[in-house]
Amino acid sequence: MKHRLALSLRIALPASLAGVLAAASPPSKPLTPSEIVARAPPSAWAAVPDDDLLVIDLDNRQRVAIALAPDFAPVHVANIRRLARAGWFTGITINRVQDNYVTQWGDATEKKPLPADVVAHPPAEYERPLKGLGFRALGYRDAYAAQAGHAGGWPVATDGKLAWLTHCYAMVGVGRNLAPDTGTGAELYAVIGHAPRHLDRNITTVGRVLAGMEALAALPRGTEALGVYKEGVARPAIVSARLAADMPAAGRPRFEIMRSDSIDFANWVSARANRKDDFFIRPAGAVDICNAMPPVRPAAK
Amino acid sequence: MKHRLALSLRIALPASLAGVLAAASPPSKPLTPSEIVARAPPSAWAAVPDDDLLVIDLDNRQRVAIALAPDFAPVHVANIRRLARAGWFTGITINRVQDNYVTQWGDATEKKPLPADVVAHPPAEYERPLKGLGFRALGYRDAYAAQAGHAGGWPVATDGKLAWLTHCYAMVGVGRNLAPDTGTGAELYAVIGHAPRHLDRNITTVGRVLAGMEALAALPRGTEALGVYKEGVARPAIVSARLAADMPAAGRPRFEIMRSDSIDFANWVSARANRKDDFFIRPAGAVDICNAMPPVRPAAK
Repeated sequence: MKHRLALSLRIALPASLAGVLAAASPPSKPLTPSEIVARAPPSAWAAVPDDDLLVIDLDNRQRVAIALAPDFAPVHVANIRRLARAGWFTGITINRVQDNYVTQWGDATEKKPLPADVVAHPPAEYERPLKGLGFRALGYRDAYAAQAGHAGGWPVATDGKLAWLTHCYAMVGVGRNLAPDTGTGAELYAVIGHAPRHLDRNITTVGRVLAGMEALAALPRGTEALGVYKEGVARPAIVSARLAADMPAAGRPRFEIMRSDSIDFANWVSARANRKDDFFIRPAGAVDICNAMPPVRPAAK
Repeated sequence: MKHRLALSLRIALPASLAGVLAAASPPSKPLTPSEIVARAPPSAWAAVPDDDLLVIDLDNRQRVAIALAPDFAPVHVANIRRLARAGWFTGITINRVQDNYVTQWGDATEKKPLPADVVAHPPAEYERPLKGLGFRALGYRDAYAAQAGHAGGWPVATDGKLAWLTHCYAMVGVGRNLAPDTGTGAELYAVIGHAPRHLDRNITTVGRVLAGMEALAALPRGTEALGVYKEGVARPAIVSARLAADMPAAGRPRFEIMRSDSIDFANWVSARANRKDDFFIRPAGAVDICNAMPPVRPAAK
């Protein structure tokens, strides 16, 4: 509440009073979202742990970096870590690219045996208790859930008791067959279109692509049902998929996500909802959760 | 009201009673959205007029077909028709592909003179009166506007008095410079990511890509600011952009959009909001306007 109040004061104050309060600064327009990101202090950023960063290299020389979400899907994330450490992902392919929906990768033969330590039938980690997440309400209404907001840098929706990751652009989920199968984490997809929020609570969501979305979203769409690539069409293959923690320290990609409990983030959300730069004529006065994905930046070397 | 009531009856009836009412049909699960589309009668579909269909052929042999929206942006649509008839679009290029945002095409030189009959400074056709549109409320809350829904097969939002097209995936808008410039229609973009609804009422929206989204969304992203292609990088060029009305009758692409005032459409929206097939475990009980884009199909020959 304090953050939002401070912010609305800044915006709502009469120009004369605002001038007095801002005497030390040059008179200026409200900061744009990018300016807020650029000026956010180091304390407003949280590093993605090396053990939570899956780095996928493709045979077309493109790289995809995915932050994993152990707070939301611990069993599936543990599976993914085991699959990565066993080298299991190497050689599997991108098999499905459905326009305005998902890009999905896995073992096209469906015969590659899983490492022995992978949990073959994980629980359905579709949601978890809201309590303990440090949830920050977005402050604008959600089209799907009672409330949407953020927790630990993740986009989250909640019914007040349970919480779940929202299926936004770049979020990563676990491919599965029909219920009650939940998938293992060996087959994953990333959202490449408008948020398919109807998948929320129907699928285990395990992470977010922090870099390399182009490598997934700019692929030719598959021509078979559900966007599956036709037999015989070349499919991008995974050369390696490693946790950053298992890469040589000097070569590890490192990312920081803006802390969703920082005042800078609160200001950023408010600025996204109320654009006031030279281009925008009529601020929306609203923002949906998938247009409020916490800013990401490469960590300083 | 009648449509929605009929539908909720179908869903909410006790199985025993539903069985009696459906005695003539085999006992069955609720229809899926695709089944509803497949079974919709010819009366549920409206043909896109040949004069409202812009057919763009690219030099990579891909084709994009765009339905224009004269009811929402008559002056800009008239400009686009004139530009097409003058052959003005031929030779212009795709200059900007920004991931999770837009693909934009226009005259990269910014020096190509416009045909004399093009209105150089059209009015800002950002919104229009709701009255007269035949608006059908979606029936689920919108994150941005007081209400969202459909009119004439278009996705629309409204404050109760004014109405505007919503910036959903595949919607086409008019590139412009800073306010109060509104653009002419010579530079256009299509949305290729999560709906940037904050653009609603800030830009003139003129149409919807009905076919060929892949040709716009699967392009390499531009590496310069705002996704602009770097100087020297090959840009897909437009070979021709014609109104279907100006093509030989036998070769015209023809599309139909599901009528948003049909009962089939009401059933489809409800089925999209309440998925009950073998895959979905927990129906969302909601759908947002951009996940309820009216179904499109090629017209029968």
